[in-house]
Amino acid sequence: MSHVIVRNPPRTDRALADALGVFGVATVHEAQGRIGLLRPYMRPIYPGARVAGTALTVLCQAGDNLMIHAALDVAREGDVLVVVTTSESTDGMFGELLAESCRAHGVRGLVIDAGVRDVTELASMDFPVWSKAVHAQGTVKATPGSVNVEVVCAGARIRPGDVLVGDADGVAVVRREDAAAVLAAATARQGKESATRERLRAGELGLDLYGLRGKLDALGVTWVDAGD
Amino acid sequence: MSHVIVRNPPRTDRALADALGVFGVATVHEAQGRIGLLRPYMRPIYPGARVAGTALTVLCQAGDNLMIHAALDVAREGDVLVVVTTSESTDGMFGELLAESCRAHGVRGLVIDAGVRDVTELASMDFPVWSKAVHAQGTVKATPGSVNVEVVCAGARIRPGDVLVGDADGVAVVRREDAAAVLAAATARQGKESATRERLRAGELGLDLYGLRGKLDALGVTWVDAGD
Amino acid sequence: MSHVIVRNPPRTDRALADALGVFGVATVHEAQGRIGLLRPYMRPIYPGARVAGTALTVLCQAGDNLMIHAALDVAREGDVLVVVTTSESTDGMFGELLAESCRAHGVRGLVIDAGVRDVTELASMDFPVWSKAVHAQGTVKATPGSVNVEVVCAGARIRPGDVLVGDADGVAVVRREDAAAVLAAATARQGKESATRERLRAGELGLDLYGLRGKLDALGVTWVDAGD
Amino acid sequence: MSHVIVRNPPRTDRALADALGVFGVATVHEAQGRIGLLRPYMRPIYPGARVAGTALTVLCQAGDNLMIHAALDVAREGDVLVVVTTSESTDGMFGELLAESCRAHGVRGLVIDAGVRDVTELASMDFPVWSKAVHAQGTVKATPGSVNVEVVCAGARIRPGDVLVGDADGVAVVRREDAAAVLAAATARQGKESATRERLRAGELGLDLYGLRGKLDALGVTWVDAGD
Amino acid sequence: MSHVIVRNPPRTDRALADALGVFGVATVHEAQGRIGLLRPYMRPIYPGARVAGTALTVLCQAGDNLMIHAALDVAREGDVLVVVTTSESTDGMFGELLAESCRAHGVRGLVIDAGVRDVTELASMDFPVWSKAVHAQGTVKATPGSVNVEVVCAGARIRPGDVLVGDADGVAVVRREDAAAVLAAATARQGKESATRERLRAGELGLDLYGLRGKLDALGVTWVDAGD
Amino acid sequence: MSHVIVRNPPRTDRALADALGVFGVATVHEAQGRIGLLRPYMRPIYPGARVAGTALTVLCQAGDNLMIHAALDVAREGDVLVVVTTSESTDGMFGELLAESCRAHGVRGLVIDAGVRDVTELASMDFPVWSKAVHAQGTVKATPGSVNVEVVCAGARIRPGDVLVGDADGVAVVRREDAAAVLAAATARQGKESATRERLRAGELGLDLYGLRGKLDALGVTWVDAGD
Repeated sequence: MSHVIVRNPPRTDRALADALGVFGVATVHEAQGRIGLLRPYMRPIYPGARVAGTALTVLCQAGDNLMIHAALDVAREGDVLVVVTTSESTDGMFGELLAESCRAHGVRGLVIDAGVRDVTELASMDFPVWSKAVHAQGTVKATPGSVNVEVVCAGARIRPGDVLVGDADGVAVVRREDAAAVLAAATARQGKESATRERLRAGELGLDLYGLRGKLDALGVTWVDAGD
Repeated sequence: MSHVIVRNPPRTDRALADALGVFGVATVHEAQGRIGLLRPYMRPIYPGARVAGTALTVLCQAGDNLMIHAALDVAREGDVLVVVTTSESTDGMFGELLAESCRAHGVRGLVIDAGVRDVTELASMDFPVWSKAVHAQGTVKATPGSVNVEVVCAGARIRPGDVLVGDADGVAVVRREDAAAVLAAATARQGKESATRERLRAGELGLDLYGLRGKLDALGVTWVDAGD
Repeated sequence: MSHVIVRNPPRTDRALADALGVFGVATVHEAQGRIGLLRPYMRPIYPGARVAGTALTVLCQAGDNLMIHAALDVAREGDVLVVVTTSESTDGMFGELLAESCRAHGVRGLVIDAGVRDVTELASMDFPVWSKAVHAQGTVKATPGSVNVEVVCAGARIRPGDVLVGDADGVAVVRREDAAAVLAAATARQGKESATRERLRAGELGLDLYGLRGKLDALGVTWVDAGD
Repeated sequence: MSHVIVRNPPRTDRALADALGVFGVATVHEAQGRIGLLRPYMRPIYPGARVAGTALTVLCQAGDNLMIHAALDVAREGDVLVVVTTSESTDGMFGELLAESCRAHGVRGLVIDAGVRDVTELASMDFPVWSKAVHAQGTVKATPGSVNVEVVCAGARIRPGDVLVGDADGVAVVRREDAAAVLAAATARQGKESATRERLRAGELGLDLYGLRGKLDALGVTWVDAGD
Repeated sequence: MSHVIVRNPPRTDRALADALGVFGVATVHEAQGRIGLLRPYMRPIYPGARVAGTALTVLCQAGDNLMIHAALDVAREGDVLVVVTTSESTDGMFGELLAESCRAHGVRGLVIDAGVRDVTELASMDFPVWSKAVHAQGTVKATPGSVNVEVVCAGARIRPGDVLVGDADGVAVVRREDAAAVLAAATARQGKESATRERLRAGELGLDLYGLRGKLDALGVTWVDAGD
Repeated sequence: MSHVIVRNPPRTDRALADALGVFGVATVHEAQGRIGLLRPYMRPIYPGARVAGTALTVLCQAGDNLMIHAALDVAREGDVLVVVTTSESTDGMFGELLAESCRAHGVRGLVIDAGVRDVTELASMDFPVWSKAVHAQGTVKATPGSVNVEVVCAGARIRPGDVLVGDADGVAVVRREDAAAVLAAATARQGKESATRERLRAGELGLDLYGLRGKLDALGVTWVDAGD
C-alpha cells in the first residue's frame, strides 16, 4: 500500500455543507433514505457540540498521530477532520494543541474512531469532537499513513470532501454528489414535521395521523380488555 | 404468539407512584429488599432526568416502532412508556415527535432497551428518557407486537401497571402489589439514613456505627503497621 | 491469603500530590514517560470532577463494601480512596453516606473499579468519583478483604501512598518515589507547551514546528494532487 | 424479599420435554412464534452439548453458590438447572463436583447467566452447560437466595417447570402450558422443512419457492446490469 | 436510496481467488501491505473452516433476510456471500436451508456481520461461515435492500467481485485490481518465511536474523542483570 | 521511564512449576486463597491447551512486537512468555514463526493480553496460547519496551519468575515466594476433593456434606410447597 497525501480533493460546496448543518443528524439521515450514520459508540465529548463541514480524512497507524499533522497542511476553511486507525485503538491521538492548530487553519471539528484527551480544554474552546473514547494515552509520530483517501470510520464509508454533520445524536455523512438532493429532501421533511408536531401536540394519535389502524388489523393485532 | 393491545390493565394507584418517586432509585431498591433494578447500561439521556409512574409496556420488533404508536392510544395520565424489542437493537425508535404525543396523552417519560434520537430536543422538553443507546437510526412501522403485556426490560421483569422510578442512578421497578409496602419501607429507611448521615458527618466511623469491628476480627482481618 | 489493614503506609508528601494535581492527567502521564494511566472505562461521574491525593487502597469481595468502612479508620487528610474487587462487579458499593464519612476524615475523592450510586448527591457535594459504572445495586458487609495493600485497578498497579490525579481525561497514578521527578518534568513540559500553543495558534504547522516533513519523506509518504 | 425453596412446582411432562429436545433450538423458537430465546452470549462450553428438560431455577447472590446446593435437594429426574445472580457476575459458581452431584440426582445440564469452571472435566463427563463465561474464580456459601421461583435469565423469563432446550445455537425456553402446542408446531414445521430442503438442493431458488419476486417488485427493488 | 440487484458485476478471475486461498489470511494481509482485514469479532463457526472466492455482497435491513434470497439468483460458481445490515443486529439471518441453496448455486461460504443458526448442520456440511454471533433468532422477509453494491463489513470496505479469504485467523478482502499483485507478493513472502522458519528452528534469534540489536541500542534499551 | 532487558531474574524452581502444572487452574487458584486469576477474557486458542512454567514478561508498545524478539535472547528452559502492551490492542503480535523460535529456546507457551495469528499452525505445533483476541493484523518493530519487569496482565500483577498455570479454565499466577506453600495446599485440597467426589456421586447432598442446612435456616430461607 502506498501512502499519499492528496492536496486538493474535490469538496462539497461550503454553502451546501453549512445548509445541511442547520438540520440535525436525524433529519439528514432520514432525508437521504436512512443511510450514512456512524455507529452509535461515536459520542460528542461535551453537551451542545455541533458541526457541519467537508471531510478531511486521515488514516493513521494505531497509537501514532503523525498523519494528523500532515493533514493540517492541506486543510481548508470549512473542513472537519476524520481520523481512523488501521487497527482498533483508544489512544488519545488528539488534544488541545492540535485543536488550536485546527482552529488556525479553518478546521471546524473532529470525528475520530479512537481516543481524545484534554477534553475540558476542548470544551472550553467549543471545538466539537465525536470520539470512541476519552483517554490521556499519548502517541508517537513514527509511522506512515495517508491523508484525503477514502476511509471507513465507525462503520461508514467516508471520502474526502463528503459532508459531515454532527450533533448530540451522533454523526452522519452525506456523499458530495448527493448533498444538494439531500438538502432539498431535508427541507421538505422539516416542513412536514412541523405540521405533524402541531397535530400530535393537539392530541391526535400517530395511529390516526399515519393511518396505522388498518395495518394493525391486517397484521392480526387484537385489542382486548384486561379482564378478557 | 398472538399480538394484543391490552386497553386497561390494572395500574398502581397514581398517588402511590408519585410518593415512591420522591425517593431515589437506590432507596426504592433497598426498601424492597435489593430487587427490581434494571441493568446499569440503561442511562438517562440528560442530567437531572427523573420520573415516576405506571408502566405502559410495549413489545416491538427490532427496528420497528409501530407498536409505540399503538400504545399511546391506551395511555393514561401518569404512565411511563417501557419499550423492549424481540431481539437486541440500538435503533433510534423514539424521538421528539413521539415525545410530543406522549406529553399530549399524559405519558411522563420513557424507559427503552434500544436507542433514541433527538436527544437535544428531548432534553429541552425535559422529557425524561433512559435508554441503551443514542442513535439517529430510523425505524419502520411494519411488524406486529403487543402493548401492556409482561416484558423483560434490561434484565428486569416489568408488568403493565407496575411502578417505575428513574433518576441519575438508573431505573427500578416496583410490583403493583408491593408498592404500598415499599413506600412504607422507603419512608422508614430515609428517616434512619438522616440520623446516620449526621453521625457520619460528625466523624463517627461506619465501623463503630454499624458495629463492624467484631466482624472484622471474626473474619480474621488483622491490623498491622507498615513497618511490621 | 491473609487479610490485613495496614495503618500507616508511607505516603507521598501532600504538597507534592497537591502540586501534581495542578497539572492535568495527560500532562502527568506524559511527564512520567507515558505510563500510569488507568483504562479509559474509568469515567468521572460529573463534569468538572478533579482530584489529587495519596492512594488509600481497598481490596473488597465483589458485592461487599465492608472493607471501605475499615479503610476510613486509617484514612488521613489528603487521601483518595481506591477500591477494587477480587472479581469483576458493577454493584453500587459507594454512595452519599460513605462520601459524607470520607469528607469527615479528609478523604478527597474515590477511584473505584466497580459501581457507585447516589450520583446526584455526590455531584451536589462536589465529591469527585471515577468509576466503571453507575448502579444502584446494594451490597453486603460480610466478607474479609484488605486495606492499604498493593492493588491492580483498571489495569494499573497502585500502592498505598502513591499519588492519584483525576480529571475529565481519566485517572493517572504516580509512584511515591517518582513524584518529585514527575513534578519537575510536568513543570518543564507545561512551559514548553505554552510556547508551542502560541506558535500553533499563529498558524505554524506541526509539520514545521516538530520538523516532520523529512520524516514523511523518509517514510515514503508522497504528496499528490487529486487529479493525478 | 423473602427467600424460599419451593419443593414441588408443577413441571412439564417429561415425555413432552424429551420430544421437544429432538428438535433443535431454532425449530422450537420458530414453532412458538419466534419467542423464548436467551441472549446469544449464552454459549455451550463444548461442541456437541445438547439438553432438554424441565427448569429447576436458582436465584443466587453474585459470587455465592449456596442456593445451588439447596436446589439439588429438590431436584427431580429430568431437570435442568437454571442459575441467575441478583447482579451481574462472571464468577465460576459451578464445577465438576456440582456436576457429579447433579448427575446423582437426575439433573441433565446447566444454564447459568454467570461463569463455570472445570470445563475440561465437564466435557469429559458430557455434562452440558451453557454459560456467559468460563472462569476459575471461586465463590462463597454465605448469602440467601431462592429456588424454584420465576427468574429472568439472559433476557428471558423462566419459571420452574418450563421446558429448556439447548444446543449449539443457544438456549430456548418453552412455557409449561405451551409445550404440547409447540411440539405439534415443531413437528409440522420439520416436515415442511424437509420438502423445502430437497427443492433448494435441486437448485430451486428461495425467490421462487417462497414467491418473493413480486414482493421485490412491490418494494421497488430493481434488477440492473453492472454496465448500466 | 434506490435498491438494486446488480446481476453481473466484474469478478476477480476465479483462478486468482483460488490461488490466494492457498495462502492464509495473515499472509494475504501482509502481502498487500497490512490492509484489508475484517474486525477480529468475525469468527469461524467451526474449527477448520476455510474459504476463498469472489464477493457476492448483500445489504439487508436488520432482522430481514429477503435480500439473501435475491442474491442467490445472481450467484456464480466461486462466490462467497457477504451479508451486512443497515443497523447492528445479531439475528440468525442464515441457516442450513440457505446453505443448501448456496451449495446448489456454487456459493462457497458466508461472511456475515450479524448472526447465523443451525451451526451444527453447517459444520456437518462443511459450509464455512464467519459471523459476529450464533443466534437462533428468526428473521422476516419484508424490507428492500440491495445486492452486489459496495458495502462496509466489520470495518472493511468490500465491493462485489473482490476476493475474500477466510481461515482460523479471520477474514481478509483483496481488491479485484490488486489480486494478481497480491498473489505475487504472497508467493514471495512465503518463500522467505520458509527460510526464516528453518533458521529460527535452528535456534537463531530474531534479534540477529532481523538485525534488531542495533535498533534496541539506538532506542535506548539497556541490558541489565537482576542484581543490578 | 527507562527501558530495560533484565537478563537473569530469579525464577521459581522448575520442579515446583511443573508440580503446580499437574493441578488445574481452579485448584491452584483455590489453594492460594482465591487470588491470582487473570480476567476471563483470556482464552486458550485451541482445546486441550495446557501449560505451566516461569514468567518471562514483555512490555510492548501496542502494535509493536520488537521486545518479544528481545525477550527470546534471555529465555530459559521452562519459561512462559507473558506479553502486555502499554495501551489496549488486539493486533496479532505473535504467530507461528515466533512460536518456532520459542520452541528452540525452551519457552513452553504464551499468555498475551492482545492478539495472535496463525492459530491453526500454533494448534498443530501444540504450542499453547491464551489471548484476548485472534487477529491477523501485523505489527512493526520500532518502539522500545522492557523485558523481565513487573507487569499487569489481564488484571493480574505478574513478576518475572512467577509461576504461570494455564488450562481450559484460564490462567493463574503464583508468586515465586508462595509456590511451595501453594503446591502443598493444592495437594491437600485435591485429596479432600476426591473424597467429596465419591460422596456426591453416591447421592449425598452438598447441603449435608458441607453442613449447610443450618445456615439456610439462620439466613431465613424457608421451604415451601408449590401449593402454599
